[in-house]
Amino acid sequence: MGQIICAGLGPGDPDLISVGADRAIRGARHVAFFRKPGRQGQARRIVDGMLPPGCAEYPMEYPVTTELPFDSPAYIDLLSRFYDEWAGRLAALAQNHDVVVLCEGDPFLYGSFMHLYVRLRDRVPVRVIPGIPGMVGCWNASGTPITWGDDVLTVLMGTLPEADLARHMAACDAMVVMKTGRNLPKVRRALAAAGRLDDAWLVERGTMPGQRIARLAEVEAADCPYFAIVLVHGQGRRPVAMPDAAE
Amino acid sequence: MGQIICAGLGPGDPDLISVGADRAIRGARHVAFFRKPGRQGQARRIVDGMLPPGCAEYPMEYPVTTELPFDSPAYIDLLSRFYDEWAGRLAALAQNHDVVVLCEGDPFLYGSFMHLYVRLRDRVPVRVIPGIPGMVGCWNASGTPITWGDDVLTVLMGTLPEADLARHMAACDAMVVMKTGRNLPKVRRALAAAGRLDDAWLVERGTMPGQRIARLAEVEAADCPYFAIVLVHGQGRRPVAMPDAAE
Repeated sequence: MGQIICAGLGPGDPDLISVGADRAIRGARHVAFFRKPGRQGQARRIVDGMLPPGCAEYPMEYPVTTELPFDSPAYIDLLSRFYDEWAGRLAALAQNHDVVVLCEGDPFLYGSFMHLYVRLRDRVPVRVIPGIPGMVGCWNASGTPITWGDDVLTVLMGTLPEADLARHMAACDAMVVMKTGRNLPKVRRALAAAGRLDDAWLVERGTMPGQRIARLAEVEAADCPYFAIVLVHGQGRRPVAMPDAAE
Repeated sequence: MGQIICAGLGPGDPDLISVGADRAIRGARHVAFFRKPGRQGQARRIVDGMLPPGCAEYPMEYPVTTELPFDSPAYIDLLSRFYDEWAGRLAALAQNHDVVVLCEGDPFLYGSFMHLYVRLRDRVPVRVIPGIPGMVGCWNASGTPITWGDDVLTVLMGTLPEADLARHMAACDAMVVMKTGRNLPKVRRALAAAGRLDDAWLVERGTMPGQRIARLAEVEAADCPYFAIVLVHGQGRRPVAMPDAAE
């Protein structure tokens, strides 16, 4: 019997894949990955040139992305059946083969693989190889440490209601906001309400070609891809007051 | 002229070091790392067997750890001079050589290297290679995803005042508490006050030999090493209600 190996790919630069995940990917005979229909998919793009000849590929195409509200019964039903079906197909494959599932970032931090994981773990052996989360690649790209001393770090999704965002933004020292994109105007208003907008940075495609880092207050609202992260760096305790910010 | 290369080592398992950091370490001629006096040091231990023959080693021994309060002028002065001195030594070495500085986890997330970084970055070229944070290794070791859907994730230091801890613990969905050790009784009381103690897990030496995972409520207060992390997993949105917890 084979196993399912979920390989965390890290933030995008193939050099940031772990030694263990790199080995699993380069030795894979069966590889599955999520993507939007008609796209190559970010996970598959990261491993370009790494898959061995003859490796079978299984693109798992989301049946729906933003066409339906994510809390509508129709959306939930479509996604649920999608994960059920792929869990079944991967479990069947794993009867005879190892199957590597590619996952951007870290698989257990807001990753789609988790929906397969809870459906698979009682049926077949599943091994998850952690990865560097996308947000870690982004704060590295910003050239400034994210947290010092006792700083409180909070990770927020841009999909949250504006008042919730503002409340959490006011309560923490350092912050990461993911799933920005169409939520960016709301994220910006919440940052302003929390008094944090002037310290916020937008990082696009962190660690990847075309990386861009800009002060959020200076970015056009229309000019923000989904795959961007907002950062506010902590300014906590350190021996000797050294001036620090993403100058 | 050489450069300073800070290599993030990840949570402890050498297989979780990135391909790029692995290459830097295996090609190093000069390696520096923090440690307590008289100890081998966790960073150095992780790369055991990886350094090439003849590689020069520079252990940077903390002049003080817990002997003085971390906010006392004496502590701040000692640490500040320690970082100043090592920044000077590494900058001098980098005039002629590349120097690899080893850092557990991710260097920009509560790492000691940041104190060298702010002292070095205007004097010599510094390259930082991100790593998988220790907390990511711990939630991977727990076998349960840390965040789903719109979950709010908060990272707290056990050194914070008890009332602050309890307030932040009540406000988030998923949580990580670092720097536990002697703070564990306080962390436990804060979790109880926030109504989260029954969902809290203690992860010791995540991804390393001797890894241990236990419900915090069932761990003896005296039985907690400094290098342990407390986790509360998020239970956010997912298609179809699947039972999930670190059962």
